[in-house]
Amino acid sequence: MTKSPCPRLIFVRHGQTEWSKSGQYTSRTDLDLTPFGVKQMRNTGKGLIGSGNLQMIKPENLTHIFVSPRKRAQHTSELLLEEVDPEVRAKIPIEIEEDIREWEYGEYEGLKTNEIIELRKQKGLDKDSEWTIWGKGCEGGEQHFEVAERLDRFIEKIQKIHREALAKGVASDIIVVAHGHILRCLVARWVKRDLSTNPQLILDAGGVGVLSYQHHNVDEPAIYLAGAFTVPIEEEGADI
Amino acid sequence: MTKSPCPRLIFVRHGQTEWSKSGQYTSRTDLDLTPFGVKQMRNTGKGLIGSGNLQMIKPENLTHIFVSPRKRAQHTSELLLEEVDPEVRAKIPIEIEEDIREWEYGEYEGLKTNEIIELRKQKGLDKDSEWTIWGKGCEGGEQHFEVAERLDRFIEKIQKIHREALAKGVASDIIVVAHGHILRCLVARWVKRDLSTNPQLILDAGGVGVLSYQHHNVDEPAIYLAGAFTVPIEEEGADI
Repeated sequence: MTKSPCPRLIFVRHGQTEWSKSGQYTSRTDLDLTPFGVKQMRNTGKGLIGSGNLQMIKPENLTHIFVSPRKRAQHTSELLLEEVDPEVRAKIPIEIEEDIREWEYGEYEGLKTNEIIELRKQKGLDKDSEWTIWGKGCEGGEQHFEVAERLDRFIEKIQKIHREALAKGVASDIIVVAHGHILRCLVARWVKRDLSTNPQLILDAGGVGVLSYQHHNVDEPAIYLAGAFTVPIEEEGADI
Repeated sequence: MTKSPCPRLIFVRHGQTEWSKSGQYTSRTDLDLTPFGVKQMRNTGKGLIGSGNLQMIKPENLTHIFVSPRKRAQHTSELLLEEVDPEVRAKIPIEIEEDIREWEYGEYEGLKTNEIIELRKQKGLDKDSEWTIWGKGCEGGEQHFEVAERLDRFIEKIQKIHREALAKGVASDIIVVAHGHILRCLVARWVKRDLSTNPQLILDAGGVGVLSYQHHNVDEPAIYLAGAFTVPIEEEGADI
């Protein structure tokens, strides 16, 4: 008996928006993708999900899709699935998930990092050390421990699905479509890192990464370093 | 003036060998790639390096290549570069780098994890807690702090090249071809994590990942979550 493939959580940051381009903090502001962002995610979908040799996600292995409530994530999710056979797609549960909405920036919504640093200096804050979102959070928005709390709840939900799939010996790929900060936090919490310091991770708009487990064991969560894409061989040998 | 691209360290784990397939610890044993491993890395090279829209590494931006002294890494490096214009390739310095040879497994060379655990139990070791390479290292081989020492020396060398490139405003992509354990350690040390605990990273044979910096700043090293491959858009807009 061959082992079922190890369960995976494939995370996608939404495609380009006007504010991802300009570097403005975007949480609740409900921007849509730019025309470039639309093309970007449509093509990523074709390369990522499908039944050919090239795509890493087989639609029939997709057991759930979780999407942030914001328009840019919803639109990204639609574009990713555009080429999937409608009958197969209809069987995949797609859920709007509040716990993966972007970090709440409160008063900093729409600002850039240097503007936030300046604003806080004017208010007499940060006399000891410069602002980072990790250490000091957002006025009127969230602190790192609030973000960790909702992500841990989400991770528990994912790992429950993955445990059940492993017990049944079936594949379970789950896609999460969300935002730059919250997804980097998700990766850090997946391996139980504290969010009070910068997790030192980069994820561009449209970027795709993978979380999984070592040794087919849900108690050994790990980060996939090679990301989402692999190059297939032209002619598959018996020894793959 | 547009900024030069942020310097990157692209790391590649060598392609499949008989022992990567069977899960045997391979450090000094000088195995070559399997026929599948050869096809795998040839195709990865085509997809990874080139002057088209698809490939993420432009050969003219490659400033250095560092390769482990072992045959499987050397062969992988040759296959990756096979399609690069010989004139361009001749200008790229390729160095054999002892500091990125695989973790020295000593007495555990050729064994699998469960065999190492069993061997150590027979010797009366690990009465308190189960063996991991991170916490307890290898008898007759290396401990985590010895591995960290040589990787830190290597990272310093890389970051010196990257600093100079940023100062001159030129691109600098560096490729490192090495092994499963040492590359996961390299990623962990890039962001200054202690190696005495499992860094919770996965890297399959043939896998490609990327290290870079936040804010174009060599003092802010970070891990690229989307790995090496991105899907290009069909028609590039002015707003990329």
